[in-house]
Amino acid sequence: MREIAIIGIGAGDPDHLTLQAIAAIQRIEVFFLLDKGPAKQDLVRLRTEILRRHARQAYRLIEAPDPERDRAATAYPAAVEDWRRRRGDLYARLLSDELPDGGRGAFLVWGDPALYDSTLAVLDDLYTRQVVEFEYQVVPGISAVAALTARHRITLNRIGRPVQITTGRRLADEGFPPGVDDLVVMLDAHCTFTRFTAADRIDIYWGAYLGTPDELLLAGPVHEIADQIVTTRATARARKGWIMDTYLLRRTIGQATGQQARDD
Amino acid sequence: MREIAIIGIGAGDPDHLTLQAIAAIQRIEVFFLLDKGPAKQDLVRLRTEILRRHARQAYRLIEAPDPERDRAATAYPAAVEDWRRRRGDLYARLLSDELPDGGRGAFLVWGDPALYDSTLAVLDDLYTRQVVEFEYQVVPGISAVAALTARHRITLNRIGRPVQITTGRRLADEGFPPGVDDLVVMLDAHCTFTRFTAADRIDIYWGAYLGTPDELLLAGPVHEIADQIVTTRATARARKGWIMDTYLLRRTIGQATGQQARDD
Repeated sequence: MREIAIIGIGAGDPDHLTLQAIAAIQRIEVFFLLDKGPAKQDLVRLRTEILRRHARQAYRLIEAPDPERDRAATAYPAAVEDWRRRRGDLYARLLSDELPDGGRGAFLVWGDPALYDSTLAVLDDLYTRQVVEFEYQVVPGISAVAALTARHRITLNRIGRPVQITTGRRLADEGFPPGVDDLVVMLDAHCTFTRFTAADRIDIYWGAYLGTPDELLLAGPVHEIADQIVTTRATARARKGWIMDTYLLRRTIGQATGQQARDD
Repeated sequence: MREIAIIGIGAGDPDHLTLQAIAAIQRIEVFFLLDKGPAKQDLVRLRTEILRRHARQAYRLIEAPDPERDRAATAYPAAVEDWRRRRGDLYARLLSDELPDGGRGAFLVWGDPALYDSTLAVLDDLYTRQVVEFEYQVVPGISAVAALTARHRITLNRIGRPVQITTGRRLADEGFPPGVDDLVVMLDAHCTFTRFTAADRIDIYWGAYLGTPDELLLAGPVHEIADQIVTTRATARARKGWIMDTYLLRRTIGQATGQQARDD
């Protein structure tokens, strides 16, 4: 039986790696690298750096081009489903071609494998459909959300209050969700936070390239620093060719709402 | 100037520790342990085990009884505020009495310091009010949420969809929040999930003592396994004297809602 490990390697800092992840890495014979797009080179570099530091065994690196998603498609979930299916075919082929029965392979996943990453879903689908025989385990990692709050030295939630994690697309479509004053936004290529400069007072805690030497951090009232974030983001993106960023929108909890005393 | 590190040590498994956390631990002279209640002994044991394995320097352990919160109070945020103030007084005293100017101290925080833990808020308050002079940094940790999803081998969010993290109290007060089908519930002493056995199909992924040898995991449709979780939880709590658990409620996304195709 093949064994697969889906290993969270943290948000960009090689020192985000856990002891559990290192132990898992040291048992692996084949690492699958399926990055794509403009960030590919940097993503592969982080992974090979991690292997250089921690792998003491002989191993093989299998690089394959990850299928591109149709980003122009209007039906977002359908496009993602199609993309996921093509990835499934690719992963099934890689597992059966590159990993002998009894072999141990791994996918090194940026951040935490549970959060806005499809590796786990693709493998779970192959597992359920028994397309190829394997067992698998997941090793949690430091997420971009944990890295963002740590660098800004803020809590994710406020006392006894909920926090929501969503996508830029959803924020653009549906606005600030009801009943929530603390909102983490991921995968936002369109600076959707700029829509909230006229609203009630909202603070933004923004970070890009978290945990790396290129890390950028900005925080303040959205109406004051939205432009600065837009400019900083565009400049950095042009310079590096890609950007990965995330942010927390924190709405002031007024006494007047009668909900709760402000606690930040 | 005193230096304080708030170090996330992960959800219970000593191997959740990151290399960044280990490096931070190895610079510390004084560790503050402020656990309380029935879990205290186990919590202290995990921390001392971590120090035994990783601290190579001489260090001091300062244990102090963390102020008790008034759990009977009906005004929850006010009770937490009062508790936080008393903790603030204690922390200020510990920092000035036990840490010389230029000294390096740390708080080892279960899980990720950003998520439903007050250490960061207490220190931030002392810092802002300049009650005692210090600088501080936060080291992110593997959260109970990341540990839960990894052990169940599930993603936290579904494709392009939001996920909310909330408390048992809030779920009891306000029900399943609108616009969200994936809900993580923390700090739920009252098995609030049992209220959802008659609702639309909702799956629950439950975990207790995550990452420890006592770990318990149960998953399935709420209406089928709610009773089993209640019983398992009560038995474990009676045996160990305390329990820490968390769960994800995942509502089936029906075709009929017209929102999105189901993707799990």
